[in-house]
Amino acid sequence: MTTTRGTESPAETASLAPPATDTDARAIITIRLLAADAVQAAGSGHPGLPMGAAAAAYTLWSRFLRHDPSRPGWPDRDRFVLSAGHGSALLYALLHLSGYDLSLEDLRAFRQWGSKAPGHPEHGHTPGVETTTGPLGQGLGNAVGMALAERMLASRYNVPGLPPVVGHRTFVLASDGDLMEGISHEAASLAGHLRLGRLIVLYDDNEISIDGDTSLACGDDVERRFAGYGWQVRRVADGNDTAAISAALREAAADETRPSLIALRTRIGYGSPAVEGTAKAHGAPLGDGELARVKARFGWPAGRSFHVPSDVRRRFAELADAGARTRQDWEDRLDALRSADPRRAAEWDRTQAGWLPAGIDGFSTAFAPEGPVATRTASGKALRDLARVMPELVGGSADLTGSTCTDLAEGWVAPGDYGGRGLRFGVREHAMGAALNGIALHGGLRPFGSTFLVFSDYMRPAIRLAALMKLPVIYVFTHDSVAVGEDGPTHQPVEHLAALRTIPGLAVLRPADANETAAAWELAARRLDGPTALVLSRQGLPVLPPPGGTLIREGARVAREGSLTPDVVLIATGSEVSLALEAADLLAAGQVTARVVSVPWRERFLATRLREEILPAGVPRVIVEAGSTDPWRALAGPSGTVIGVDSFGASGPGPEVMTRLGLSAPRVRDAALEVIARAASPEASAAARPGRSAGR
Amino acid sequence: MTTTRGTESPAETASLAPPATDTDARAIITIRLLAADAVQAAGSGHPGLPMGAAAAAYTLWSRFLRHDPSRPGWPDRDRFVLSAGHGSALLYALLHLSGYDLSLEDLRAFRQWGSKAPGHPEHGHTPGVETTTGPLGQGLGNAVGMALAERMLASRYNVPGLPPVVGHRTFVLASDGDLMEGISHEAASLAGHLRLGRLIVLYDDNEISIDGDTSLACGDDVERRFAGYGWQVRRVADGNDTAAISAALREAAADETRPSLIALRTRIGYGSPAVEGTAKAHGAPLGDGELARVKARFGWPAGRSFHVPSDVRRRFAELADAGARTRQDWEDRLDALRSADPRRAAEWDRTQAGWLPAGIDGFSTAFAPEGPVATRTASGKALRDLARVMPELVGGSADLTGSTCTDLAEGWVAPGDYGGRGLRFGVREHAMGAALNGIALHGGLRPFGSTFLVFSDYMRPAIRLAALMKLPVIYVFTHDSVAVGEDGPTHQPVEHLAALRTIPGLAVLRPADANETAAAWELAARRLDGPTALVLSRQGLPVLPPPGGTLIREGARVAREGSLTPDVVLIATGSEVSLALEAADLLAAGQVTARVVSVPWRERFLATRLREEILPAGVPRVIVEAGSTDPWRALAGPSGTVIGVDSFGASGPGPEVMTRLGLSAPRVRDAALEVIARAASPEASAAARPGRSAGR
Repeated sequence: MTTTRGTESPAETASLAPPATDTDARAIITIRLLAADAVQAAGSGHPGLPMGAAAAAYTLWSRFLRHDPSRPGWPDRDRFVLSAGHGSALLYALLHLSGYDLSLEDLRAFRQWGSKAPGHPEHGHTPGVETTTGPLGQGLGNAVGMALAERMLASRYNVPGLPPVVGHRTFVLASDGDLMEGISHEAASLAGHLRLGRLIVLYDDNEISIDGDTSLACGDDVERRFAGYGWQVRRVADGNDTAAISAALREAAADETRPSLIALRTRIGYGSPAVEGTAKAHGAPLGDGELARVKARFGWPAGRSFHVPSDVRRRFAELADAGARTRQDWEDRLDALRSADPRRAAEWDRTQAGWLPAGIDGFSTAFAPEGPVATRTASGKALRDLARVMPELVGGSADLTGSTCTDLAEGWVAPGDYGGRGLRFGVREHAMGAALNGIALHGGLRPFGSTFLVFSDYMRPAIRLAALMKLPVIYVFTHDSVAVGEDGPTHQPVEHLAALRTIPGLAVLRPADANETAAAWELAARRLDGPTALVLSRQGLPVLPPPGGTLIREGARVAREGSLTPDVVLIATGSEVSLALEAADLLAAGQVTARVVSVPWRERFLATRLREEILPAGVPRVIVEAGSTDPWRALAGPSGTVIGVDSFGASGPGPEVMTRLGLSAPRVRDAALEVIARAASPEASAAARPGRSAGR
Repeated sequence: MTTTRGTESPAETASLAPPATDTDARAIITIRLLAADAVQAAGSGHPGLPMGAAAAAYTLWSRFLRHDPSRPGWPDRDRFVLSAGHGSALLYALLHLSGYDLSLEDLRAFRQWGSKAPGHPEHGHTPGVETTTGPLGQGLGNAVGMALAERMLASRYNVPGLPPVVGHRTFVLASDGDLMEGISHEAASLAGHLRLGRLIVLYDDNEISIDGDTSLACGDDVERRFAGYGWQVRRVADGNDTAAISAALREAAADETRPSLIALRTRIGYGSPAVEGTAKAHGAPLGDGELARVKARFGWPAGRSFHVPSDVRRRFAELADAGARTRQDWEDRLDALRSADPRRAAEWDRTQAGWLPAGIDGFSTAFAPEGPVATRTASGKALRDLARVMPELVGGSADLTGSTCTDLAEGWVAPGDYGGRGLRFGVREHAMGAALNGIALHGGLRPFGSTFLVFSDYMRPAIRLAALMKLPVIYVFTHDSVAVGEDGPTHQPVEHLAALRTIPGLAVLRPADANETAAAWELAARRLDGPTALVLSRQGLPVLPPPGGTLIREGARVAREGSLTPDVVLIATGSEVSLALEAADLLAAGQVTARVVSVPWRERFLATRLREEILPAGVPRVIVEAGSTDPWRALAGPSGTVIGVDSFGASGPGPEVMTRLGLSAPRVRDAALEVIARAASPEASAAARPGRSAGR
């Protein structure tokens, strides 16, 4: 493994930085007042954090952060994550001043419909915003993923004897709230374990949360806590002391093996006589009168809003020029790699662009229709096959590698050694989710993570943000129903399929067998505009004939035709498809023809025309899924029925639990015979009143 | 505030305990082998933890734990929480030996359908199981709630000059996995802050997790970390050294102001030559051969399963007798309270029994139909009114007291001072959820907790367990739609209503106005067999005429009759009811009559006959809810439509966001006119094909 040489490190940049000048002081005031003005113009927002943390943020951005505002996507830029997303006005002020495509007009439109400066920072919406934050703790988790991605890419693309192409840092500004959230424990513990020395967290220790003094709810010795995670911890007694902040950042940057936490004692709402140091500064505009007093105190021109002194403009322009030069130097280093190792450079270019590997067109994992195979097992094989053609695919599980079948067999990332592709997240589902987001945001790698479906609840806030940011993260959720069996209701998902499907933009795939699982993996790999969850069985399932990827892409396929005019359509997902096929056999024995439709991707199926092709009008439907029935009622229609599980499960052998909860072929057959009889009876029209559902 | 005198403390009990004997040694082996036999009989399960932690568990149960197996519900018993629920066989062995109603036959049926010994411990299913565990970290969070409830009840019912009636401890057995989960941070931080000295955690530090050595994924210095939370931390170098364990427990019990963590270095699967100290011991039976070797090593009779030596039986019988005597002494103390302070004792009896206060029949909060009132504001008033007649009601928020309007105005619980009723959970939604469960499990108090609806995701695993255990916990979730406005998509719930409604047994109430909110609070207070979520608006809403509680109990009410034969029915929830009423006005102006139905409790409404009474057959329906539309499609029926939000929201003023996302009275009017026209047109029957939904 090669690492960046010292000369590229920001510590060096810092030592060359001039001491603080009047311009620096004015720049800090400019940031404070741009933020306060934006909040005032919006009539809502959070002025307290920007005013309190402006000095630290400016020090970081002007002396340490390597970035080029003209190229926000430069791969080797330092990342800055505002984990305390409510302080968005601080970030917008910095982005505007630095020269990102964010105008004063945008700042004036803070928190307005369509503005480039929304209430909380939104990645993909505002240039320079590295991640969407606001839900506390998530940014810190993202940053761990980014810092990990940096080390993994350094290990891949920094070639001995060539100047390194990867060597940047990840900086975070976090609040009390971020550090109170549980995810901060998981993320910090993981970062400490993995020795992510290039992760540096500025902790805005202003002693105030929404309810008042943090001491009302929290007595943590944060420094001791983080030392327990193996972090370097520094304290800056005065959050406006730029020299002390610089010194602490320099020490942090110098420690390459420990992440660093710099606790800054700041004053929330600094500069406002009325609210400084109180919870009142947190989440409301200062008001015109108080804002005028703050401006007077800082010697700012009266009656002017969004004022930027010309020397401050010049200073940021110089910084932008310096950033552009740094980026250009890096381009030269990348060119050196291109000359010396064109193959490696081509992979870099492809993965940085987010393009799929050519090999994916040849990807296929086929299973012969022999003995039963759990879809988690099939997934493990497909994953390893895919990993061979997709070198950017990295991931692992939250301490369930064997159970979720997610060993890539491509080596493991370990503390200080980032050459492997397997990630051991520990029992930390939430940080796993946030770190996956961070890896995807960083670029250059395609991340996946796994746990039991029931524990998707533990990482749901991170899944939501992946969907909101349209990140191509892949989740492997196994043990997907009450068929889990003996572990009982705490480990048996019931509502999780329905609950995950409600997240906008999350593709939830529940393949019926080994071959659908392989197709689902291909679909997940090709899906670049949002996260995908693969929902897989613990238990073995019959292997059906291969479906072809196209069919999965349309959300469903006919698993058994029955006839052109079947008596009933059995619609099922995942493990219940083979149950439906069994029921179709039972029905056939009684001269009843049933079509069986597998719906691995419900939302896609409901949105396509395919639905009307394969579900004949007037033919009653029985839907079977080992989970909540409610969302299926509309598709069942007034003449149909839904068989599922609407209560918690129970401990017992899986097949017995399934049968006792009504998930058996005879039960499906009986339900089919009932809906057929009802459709044929004279009262059928009465039963078909709108909104009446037979299955309830 | 009064506290229990030293003579009741388990430290004193311990000092009277005899030194370890051969019987004690045999008792520990009995526990190990009962657990291993149960796993072997089941063919699945987790023998490793029970075998490794048996000595510590036995030491705790035989020398410290004050309990009476003949009265599992004795209010002043010590609580024992097996946070590492996968070690259930350990708990079952202890419960059986102690004399709880759990037979050897039950142990033989471990993990079988209907067994009293399910895969993970289930509260309410097995006598003596204090909480349902398995999802890691939850038990620790529950225990914090229990320990807090104990102090709050001590503050209420221990009267100076009388012997105390509340003075017990909460013990936890936790694993590596528990402590890796984020919730452990929130829970431990909260406990340390609140100085819950009677909380004692035994940490089974066996250095093994499912993936292998914990060092593969975690490098935490757990002792340093917990010291940072203000805990007393002790280490026992040999987890089989009962004297050292006793000494550590004694020190833990002696510290009344700091929670204690005792890190026990144990060997997972202790006693098994083949798997001891390896991940193989965690989650699979030993196998007959290896089990025989373990029995031989421990000098156990060959070929016998579920063997309990007679001296071990006698020892546990003695312990049970001692527990019964301790409980009887307590009954005397309670009698003293009954004589001296019958009113206080009557409240104790009532709240321990979980009965509602008489005052609840007089409870009503009425709002005149004047200016707009946010339902969160109305909730605040109803909550305070309810609190006055319901002294057991306690709760607070996750650092959003003002925003969620959840200040009871009955004083605050603070470190070392437990006389108030308001709880400051800090930015710790997940621990809040688990602690609420613990308070409810403890008994004597009715807990509620609040945050923004979008952050219900952060506490979802705890909500699920509340539902699984049927605990009467109340959640106040405010800021319930995209109408939140400026804070943008990270703070605007879209899918949360639908996702919460999927949890079996969770009542999700979304009242339309101030008066429905008051009725919803009464319903929540009266609902004793499961958790209730109140979903409330940030924005002001018109106050409609009072609905009466009955109507809420049936899930819906007619907010505007329209006529006996309306042209359309507008169905809405929460803030969208006033939108629908506005649309009905617009329709009336065009001579179209609309009935408006408010559905504050969707699941109840769909399950009652009321639906058929107030939704006339053949009249088309428009459903409006500012959230996922999918679950409403069945009720809309093929002729109806659903107006909602199926994508993430956006930052902007709330009313503008609502309008731009299609939530406006004119849009509802137009949709109504469309469905009326479609119902009247010749193609209506074609459009009414099963499964076809107009709204998509």
